Amino acid sequence: MTSLTQWNAVILIEWGRAFHDQYDIIDKHTQSGLELVEKYVKFVKERTEIEQNYAKQLRNLTKKYNPKRGCKEEQECRFSNHQSFLDILNEMNDYAGQRELIAENMMMNICIEITKYLQELKMERKTHLSEAKKAQQSLESTYKQLDCSKKRFEREWREADKAAQYAEKTDQDINATKADVEKAKQQANMRTHIAEECKNDYAAQLQKYNKEQSQFYFSDMPLIFNKLQDMDERRVRKLAQGYVLFSDTERHVMPIIGKCLEGVTKAGTNVNERNDSIALIEQYKSGFERPGDLDFEDYSQGINRASSDSSLGTLGTPKGPLELLGKNRSKPFWLFSKKSKVGCYFPPMKEWIS
Amino acid sequence: MTSLTQWNAVILIEWGRAFHDQYDIIDKHTQSGLELVEKYVKFVKERTEIEQNYAKQLRNLTKKYNPKRGCKEEQECRFSNHQSFLDILNEMNDYAGQRELIAENMMMNICIEITKYLQELKMERKTHLSEAKKAQQSLESTYKQLDCSKKRFEREWREADKAAQYAEKTDQDINATKADVEKAKQQANMRTHIAEECKNDYAAQLQKYNKEQSQFYFSDMPLIFNKLQDMDERRVRKLAQGYVLFSDTERHVMPIIGKCLEGVTKAGTNVNERNDSIALIEQYKSGFERPGDLDFEDYSQGINRASSDSSLGTLGTPKGPLELLGKNRSKPFWLFSKKSKVGCYFPPMKEWIS
Repeated sequence: MTSLTQWNAVILIEWGRAFHDQYDIIDKHTQSGLELVEKYVKFVKERTEIEQNYAKQLRNLTKKYNPKRGCKEEQECRFSNHQSFLDILNEMNDYAGQRELIAENMMMNICIEITKYLQELKMERKTHLSEAKKAQQSLESTYKQLDCSKKRFEREWREADKAAQYAEKTDQDINATKADVEKAKQQANMRTHIAEECKNDYAAQLQKYNKEQSQFYFSDMPLIFNKLQDMDERRVRKLAQGYVLFSDTERHVMPIIGKCLEGVTKAGTNVNERNDSIALIEQYKSGFERPGDLDFEDYSQGINRASSDSSLGTLGTPKGPLELLGKNRSKPFWLFSKKSKVGCYFPPMKEWIS
Repeated sequence: MTSLTQWNAVILIEWGRAFHDQYDIIDKHTQSGLELVEKYVKFVKERTEIEQNYAKQLRNLTKKYNPKRGCKEEQECRFSNHQSFLDILNEMNDYAGQRELIAENMMMNICIEITKYLQELKMERKTHLSEAKKAQQSLESTYKQLDCSKKRFEREWREADKAAQYAEKTDQDINATKADVEKAKQQANMRTHIAEECKNDYAAQLQKYNKEQSQFYFSDMPLIFNKLQDMDERRVRKLAQGYVLFSDTERHVMPIIGKCLEGVTKAGTNVNERNDSIALIEQYKSGFERPGDLDFEDYSQGINRASSDSSLGTLGTPKGPLELLGKNRSKPFWLFSKKSKVGCYFPPMKEWIS
C-alpha cells in the first residue's frame, strides 16, 4: 500500500487518475494539440517558400550582373577591381544555394516527417476515443436494464400490498366464508412471492451495474485516458524536435554561409589599385618614342625650286641664295640636330580632338 | 642619373611615363572604371531591396501566426509546446529585424557613401581631361605659327635668289650701266637681308615650338596622366572598401542572428510533455469523487404510494407490504450501504455522446 504523499504524486501526473468525468476536456485538448502540430507544419512550409523566393531573387541578381561571354566586362577582368566584382557575384550565387538548402531541408526533415507522424497520431486518437464511447454506451445500457427491473419490483410490491390489504379486510368480514378468506390469503402470498422474485432480480441487476460502473470509472476510462496522455506526450515530444530542427537546419549551413562572406572579403582585399594601373600600362604602353625636336630646314643652304610649296617635313638639296651670295656659311645652327619626325606625331594628336 | 633598371622600374608604374600618345586609352579606361563603381552601387542597391523584401515576408509570417489578444491560442500558452511556438515566432521577428539592419547598413555605408565619392571623382576626371585638351590645343596653335613663318622664310629666300641671279646677270651684261648693276646688287642685298630676317623668325618659332613640344610630352601630359592614374587608384581603393563592406555588413549581424537561432533551439528544448500533461490536470481535474455504488431502494421496507412512478433516486417513507405481512424483517441488505448519487453522474456522461 503506497503512502498518501506517493499516492498524490501519482494522481498529479496521470490523466487516468485525475479525470473521470472530463472526457470532453481530454477530447478537446488532444484535438487542439494535433491542430498546433498542423499549424506548425504550415508555418514551416510558408517559411521554406519565403526562403526559396529569397534564394531565387539572389540567383537572378548575380545572373543579371554576370558579364556575357566575351563582352567588354569580361576582357576587363585583367583588372583586379573588375575581377573581384565577378568573384563577389560567384560567392553570392553560392550563398543563394545555401538558402535553397535550408528550404529543402526544412521541407524534408520538418514538414514531410511531422506530417507523416501526425497521420499516425490522428488514427491512434480516434481508436482511443471510440473505445471510450463503447465502454460508456455499455454502462448506459446496463443502467437502463437496472432501471426496468427496479420499476418492476416497485410495481409488484404495490400489487402485493393491495392483495395483503384485501386479505386482511376479508378476514375481518363477518359475512365472508372461510373459502373467501383462504382464497384472498393465497392470492396475497402468491403476489408477495412474485414481488420477492422481482426484488432479487433488481438486486442482481444493481450488483451487475455497480460492478460495471466501478470497472468503467476505476479501470476502463483511466486506461484510455492514460493512453491518450501517452499519445499526447509523444506528439509534444515530436513537435519539440521539430522546433529544434527549425534552427538546426539553418545553423547547419551557417559555416558555409560564413565561407561565402569570407570569400567576398577576400575578393575585396585582393583588389590592388597599383597592379591595375600597371596592367593598363602592360596592355597599352606606347610603341612610339616621345617626339624629339623638329629640325630646322635651311633653304638658305640650298633650295629645291620644284618644292616651292614645301612645308615642314620636306627637304631640298643644298643650293640656295646664301651659297650664291657667299654669306653666313660659318653660322652654326646649333639648336637643330636630327631629321624631323613631325609626320609621326600628329595622327595621335588629331584623335584627341575628335 | 638613375640606372637603366631603375628607369624601367619607374616607367612600369607611372602612366605619365608609359603613355604619351594614348590619351584616348586613359580617357576610356578611367570612364569604364567609374562605370564599374556605378554598376556596383546599383548591384548593392538591388541586394538591399531583396533583403528588405525577405525581412518583410518573415515579419508578415510571424504576424500571421501570432495569436490575437485573448484568443484560444493565447490561453493555451500555459502549455509549453504552445508557448514555445510563440517564442519561435518572436525569435523569427527579431531575425527579420536583423535582415532589415543588413539592408539599411548596406544602403548607408555602401550605396550612399560611394555615390557621394563617385560624384567627386567624376568632377576631378573632367578637370584633368580638359587640362590635357588645353595643353594640346596650345601646342597645335604654336605649330601653325611655326608652319607660317617657315613658309615665309622659304618664299623670301626664293625672291632673294631671283634678285641675286638678276644682279649677277646685270653685272655680266656689257650693255648695262654701272647704275643698273649697282641698283640690281642693292636690290639683291635688300632681298637677302629680308630673307635672313625671316630665317631668324623661323628659327625662333621653331625653338619656341620645340620648347613647348618638349614641355607637352615630358612635363604637362605626364603630370595629367599621373593625376588621372592617382584618381583611378583612389577609385579602385574606395571600390575595394565597398566590396569588403558588402560582407562585413552581414558578418556584423551574424552573432545576433546566431542568438535568434539559439533562442529557437531553447524554445524547442524548453518543451516538457509531462509538465503539459500536468498543466491540463491542474486546470481541469475533476471536483467530483468517482461515483460510488448505487444504493438498493427497498420498497419492501415501505413505499410511498404517491411515488408510484418513482425511478432510481427517489425514496418513499418506510411503510410497505413486508411490514404489514411481518416478513423478512431480519434479512440484511449487506450489499447496499449509502444513498444513491446517480443523479450527479450522468450529466457528464450525457455530454460524451453529444
